[in-house]
Amino acid sequence: MRKQKSVKDSYVRMTELVLPNDTNTLNNLMGGKMMHWMDIVSAIAAQKHSNRIVVTASVDNVSFKESIKLGNVITLEAQVTRAFSSSMEVHINVWSEDIPSGTKVKSNEAFFTFVAVDQSGNPIDVPEALPETEEEVKLYDGALRRRQLRLILAGRMKPHDANELKSIFDLG
Amino acid sequence: MRKQKSVKDSYVRMTELVLPNDTNTLNNLMGGKMMHWMDIVSAIAAQKHSNRIVVTASVDNVSFKESIKLGNVITLEAQVTRAFSSSMEVHINVWSEDIPSGTKVKSNEAFFTFVAVDQSGNPIDVPEALPETEEEVKLYDGALRRRQLRLILAGRMKPHDANELKSIFDLG
Amino acid sequence: MRKQKSVKDSYVRMTELVLPNDTNTLNNLMGGKMMHWMDIVSAIAAQKHSNRIVVTASVDNVSFKESIKLGNVITLEAQVTRAFSSSMEVHINVWSEDIPSGTKVKSNEAFFTFVAVDQSGNPIDVPEALPETEEEVKLYDGALRRRQLRLILAGRMKPHDANELKSIFDLG
Amino acid sequence: MRKQKSVKDSYVRMTELVLPNDTNTLNNLMGGKMMHWMDIVSAIAAQKHSNRIVVTASVDNVSFKESIKLGNVITLEAQVTRAFSSSMEVHINVWSEDIPSGTKVKSNEAFFTFVAVDQSGNPIDVPEALPETEEEVKLYDGALRRRQLRLILAGRMKPHDANELKSIFDLG
Amino acid sequence: MRKQKSVKDSYVRMTELVLPNDTNTLNNLMGGKMMHWMDIVSAIAAQKHSNRIVVTASVDNVSFKESIKLGNVITLEAQVTRAFSSSMEVHINVWSEDIPSGTKVKSNEAFFTFVAVDQSGNPIDVPEALPETEEEVKLYDGALRRRQLRLILAGRMKPHDANELKSIFDLG
Amino acid sequence: MRKQKSVKDSYVRMTELVLPNDTNTLNNLMGGKMMHWMDIVSAIAAQKHSNRIVVTASVDNVSFKESIKLGNVITLEAQVTRAFSSSMEVHINVWSEDIPSGTKVKSNEAFFTFVAVDQSGNPIDVPEALPETEEEVKLYDGALRRRQLRLILAGRMKPHDANELKSIFDLG
Repeated sequence: MRKQKSVKDSYVRMTELVLPNDTNTLNNLMGGKMMHWMDIVSAIAAQKHSNRIVVTASVDNVSFKESIKLGNVITLEAQVTRAFSSSMEVHINVWSEDIPSGTKVKSNEAFFTFVAVDQSGNPIDVPEALPETEEEVKLYDGALRRRQLRLILAGRMKPHDANELKSIFDLG
Repeated sequence: MRKQKSVKDSYVRMTELVLPNDTNTLNNLMGGKMMHWMDIVSAIAAQKHSNRIVVTASVDNVSFKESIKLGNVITLEAQVTRAFSSSMEVHINVWSEDIPSGTKVKSNEAFFTFVAVDQSGNPIDVPEALPETEEEVKLYDGALRRRQLRLILAGRMKPHDANELKSIFDLG
Repeated sequence: MRKQKSVKDSYVRMTELVLPNDTNTLNNLMGGKMMHWMDIVSAIAAQKHSNRIVVTASVDNVSFKESIKLGNVITLEAQVTRAFSSSMEVHINVWSEDIPSGTKVKSNEAFFTFVAVDQSGNPIDVPEALPETEEEVKLYDGALRRRQLRLILAGRMKPHDANELKSIFDLG
Repeated sequence: MRKQKSVKDSYVRMTELVLPNDTNTLNNLMGGKMMHWMDIVSAIAAQKHSNRIVVTASVDNVSFKESIKLGNVITLEAQVTRAFSSSMEVHINVWSEDIPSGTKVKSNEAFFTFVAVDQSGNPIDVPEALPETEEEVKLYDGALRRRQLRLILAGRMKPHDANELKSIFDLG
Repeated sequence: MRKQKSVKDSYVRMTELVLPNDTNTLNNLMGGKMMHWMDIVSAIAAQKHSNRIVVTASVDNVSFKESIKLGNVITLEAQVTRAFSSSMEVHINVWSEDIPSGTKVKSNEAFFTFVAVDQSGNPIDVPEALPETEEEVKLYDGALRRRQLRLILAGRMKPHDANELKSIFDLG
Repeated sequence: MRKQKSVKDSYVRMTELVLPNDTNTLNNLMGGKMMHWMDIVSAIAAQKHSNRIVVTASVDNVSFKESIKLGNVITLEAQVTRAFSSSMEVHINVWSEDIPSGTKVKSNEAFFTFVAVDQSGNPIDVPEALPETEEEVKLYDGALRRRQLRLILAGRMKPHDANELKSIFDLG
């Protein structure tokens, strides 16, 4: 029988300081640097779940609403939502804090998917991921829908086969 | 009347070498570093179209199919596909080349969206983007669909209002 | 009356991945890189306590017992222990984790001291730091002794005036 | 008989320029970056003495008195003070220079300890370190006291066994 | 017979953004960073021509006429001009663009020479480089003269043996 | 009368460790990184002579004879050779040391030229540079010849006007 691990065992929190080289000429954090951090924090979460080296398989749509300034403190939290044979979806929340002014805002939310690999780089099965809290169950349930959307966007699934996804689009 | 610019005027080509710090312990390029480069090349394309400082607004789903090794040469090409008042969608193609073995593969394709801002960081209108080749027209036409998907995924549009998007999902 | 804040409000957790450029030719993390991370995580803790920009004032003796390898995941936790007018002592614990082998060891423990400054760089008073748990009270109480040792080592206090410190050295 | 080398053969001088990413939002050098440089310069001194790869074993109390600005030129000088079987203590002096204003101040002084290791990472004996000048002899003599303080602070020696150290604390 | 390749097959275009750490305290790009980029783009051109790992053999005189500012977009174009047994000369053009102000200037032109090596680091023959356009033929023809100047400056050729070079100096 | 300073007052010594990101896939230092270090050490020498911010004006032909490996210790020494109104020529010597094997070789020698600028970036006069030792006088005397070669190579002097240079080429 497949091994099981609680999703919360994969929880990782990372804190970063926005330095000059991370910013554009308006002193705003560049989106690419933020995605670089998101990739590292979520890769560590996927490593903790699988006890394996992992490689990034896909990144879901990420939107950047808040401008983040030089000197801000960025907190990233990542946790596996669900595992599928050798792949794992990871959910990431990002907060940005301007400490002298005492303001903290949620700046991003994202889903990254990783594949666990062995030393030769071949995919290898990972434990099942068990959700416990209500929030974890909701993320676990939504993982199937997001997976179908990824497969459609990658041209690997036909839309009318995406049963789970239909609920997003109110399809009868 | 709004200014018009050919989409090809925004074309940018960037070449990068995969260095040790860009790789994981299997000597594969980390996905976050790739997204960092994609963000820079596409931000430059959006700057060229708008002659403005730009900020990343969103990144569409990106998938990573090929593993890219230490020492590979990465070529990224970016070009604006369409402009909407102050925002621009940029299309990015990425190739990875192992020069000693003479192999070159297309490794990624992505869409990033940027907003042009003035010196105070406020959104400002950009020129219209005119497609010319058949490929450019196809990307221009698809931009509306992708935009509706972004708005739905960000919770800012209801699926049944997404007329353009319906064609993806074969909705009657 | 001086403002008071719970020491736990300053708690920060940071996670880092050991990359090639952080290591020596035996693939071991260099001590200087570890101290660089310790300085960042503890500066953020001091910023959170004081809501000010802070500058490093001193680093207590740090010892490196474990060798930390390329690819390890480093977790650093920092929390203010006690505040003195404009300065704050921060306690840092560091764990190193080799995820594929499933081993995690405590690799370092350290005390850094910071001074809060205003926009002109002048020292400025910070809130009192209130310990709550037994562990926090112990760290709070020891802070005076460590402060006397720092002053003696910096040549700014005579050993026979260091009443608190005497207990360390069993002095009658 | 154990090989002997003059301490001055380990002398290293390193010069660094304070760049934007090394500074906080007040344009002051961050303490962690300074310790990173101190670690590199003193590791090279220990390598020169031992002709071995070395690993950082401990850092003694470091205090930061001067604020160092963006664009300053930092000069670090390191020299082994004394060797103990496989370990070496290194003394570091740091100057900070603001060239346009023509000011140069001594900003830091520190002691780092390194262990020489073989290719498998095991400790290996190093040559004796011979002091020659009056200053070198003084640093050589003080090395025993500093070593006892390190052992006590690491919980590996009882204070009443630290005979050498007693002189610092005026103990009868 | 020796393999032949068109010089244009080695063409590489690289785009870089001037970030804070690349600049001095006047926000001008440092010359050393520019040479670092020139070395990478021209090494890739030499790799493409030879399908080998290459090492930098020499850099001809480079002059810096324009000051390049923080935030500028740098475009570097490199192409092999001529091959000699295991070495290749590469010609590099550099443009600097200030996008918000819409100005673009040619900032540098340089010649770098590389040697192709095998996996043990020994020199290995490369294909002949065939020029096609008028500009390429001119660069191909000039390569001999520049090579003689390099050999003289390196003390490896006597000036009166440098027949090709004499034309530069109007020698009878 | 113009201020005078001894050339030796500009002497700078810098030490660097070759890290993974500085090397190619054969673990050899990349030439561009070496030039980056040369630029920094020689800019500091020119700053020390002029007490001004300086910008790189030109780099003379540099050749790379030795391959330098990961983990090597690089020592760079720079000193102004001669000053011309607002410009200064700096001579740089570079040694590369493999400490475990106890080998040290001279790997490079180069001349960089800098211009001193005021806060607006305009050229400003610098003190005369006085050579003292025989070696310094020789470098001072050769500076005129090298300057003429630079002007010819930059197309700003005609070869038959280069009286000083003629001696290199044995011209009657």
